[in-house]
Amino acid sequence: MLTLYGYFRSSAAYRVRIGLHLKNIAYQDHFIHLAKGIQHNASYQKINPQQLIPSLELEDGSVLTQSLAILEYLDAVYPTPRLIPEDPMIAAKVRAFALAIACDIHPLNNLKVWQYLKNDLHVNALESGWYRHWLLNGLTALEQSLSSQSQTTGFCFGETPTMADVLLVPQLYNARRFKTNLDAFPKLLAIEQHCTSLPAFIKASPAEQADYEAESN
Amino acid sequence: MLTLYGYFRSSAAYRVRIGLHLKNIAYQDHFIHLAKGIQHNASYQKINPQQLIPSLELEDGSVLTQSLAILEYLDAVYPTPRLIPEDPMIAAKVRAFALAIACDIHPLNNLKVWQYLKNDLHVNALESGWYRHWLLNGLTALEQSLSSQSQTTGFCFGETPTMADVLLVPQLYNARRFKTNLDAFPKLLAIEQHCTSLPAFIKASPAEQADYEAESN
Repeated sequence: MLTLYGYFRSSAAYRVRIGLHLKNIAYQDHFIHLAKGIQHNASYQKINPQQLIPSLELEDGSVLTQSLAILEYLDAVYPTPRLIPEDPMIAAKVRAFALAIACDIHPLNNLKVWQYLKNDLHVNALESGWYRHWLLNGLTALEQSLSSQSQTTGFCFGETPTMADVLLVPQLYNARRFKTNLDAFPKLLAIEQHCTSLPAFIKASPAEQADYEAESN
Repeated sequence: MLTLYGYFRSSAAYRVRIGLHLKNIAYQDHFIHLAKGIQHNASYQKINPQQLIPSLELEDGSVLTQSLAILEYLDAVYPTPRLIPEDPMIAAKVRAFALAIACDIHPLNNLKVWQYLKNDLHVNALESGWYRHWLLNGLTALEQSLSSQSQTTGFCFGETPTMADVLLVPQLYNARRFKTNLDAFPKLLAIEQHCTSLPAFIKASPAEQADYEAESN
């Protein structure tokens, strides 16, 4: 069976969980408590030299890293249902949307960046406006990039969930966690509402994970 | 003919140039002077709502964005030579290597982040150590992830250039631009030396572009 090294609150692990559930692939969890720094343990560094989650261990013991690379692998090996459409032009739109989250929103606000801002630059990512700046900039471009067609289907592109939806939902979860006003993004919110009503997205959600902890603040 | 919206010094545009030259695809340049802020002009925002480069305009006028999505598109439509190997496991390794650059090194040090650090947080990205921290962290993990086999072939994975090499060379160019000591990364350097001797990488290099400007410092 596949083993997913993840953490309930990690957006990147959440993406892979959605992909696994959409494709109905059985897997077991190995939780890595990011807030406690377990990703830096020597035993996990052997699995993932970047000390990041998620990692996906296959039955033969080989390990895949980077959430988008894992989703692409799953789409090649378990092609039903497809997360990346076959048409190269639509696939390019789906990947560009996903990468605009994975490259231009998420990396600026993950745990290690917040820790560096705090410890080395004495900047609080939330209070300084850093978090909201990158999030809102990114979401504004995503909202503009969607056609009105997405409001009919309830998905970013086409009639079924794609890698775009798989990345959008965890990013909006993260936005809500930090109490961001999302009123300016009606198209994104309509897609979120639709996706989070589907069983695969529900099973993958942070609150459904065995390592879930309620917010302490 | 394809039109590439780029800038000689942009790592992300450089990636796409390498891909186009490796595949011998003819294209014309439309230069967007990042340092002068041309990416924020209304005319370019229509092409790329994220106000980022590169963008690739196809003959029918449709526009692709995000360098990795563009490279994946080119690989699907112009499959010879392949930048992403057909074997899903090797493809996952190639994509993970590329994403470790595209998600975990590059986004923390592109122009808009440096400008925000300077203007809003009064932090100089070079003098504060921000630049080197993310760069060296990222390169350390990449160096560890390569097998000794890469030293025989001169490429990150396998016998021919892949998307991994296409991302590595521009990132190391960026590192050299800011005078980073790279002695700790002998595997990465050997691959760089080999790749930059190949015609496609030479034609794609910043110094060969019509908008090239020598460093002013």
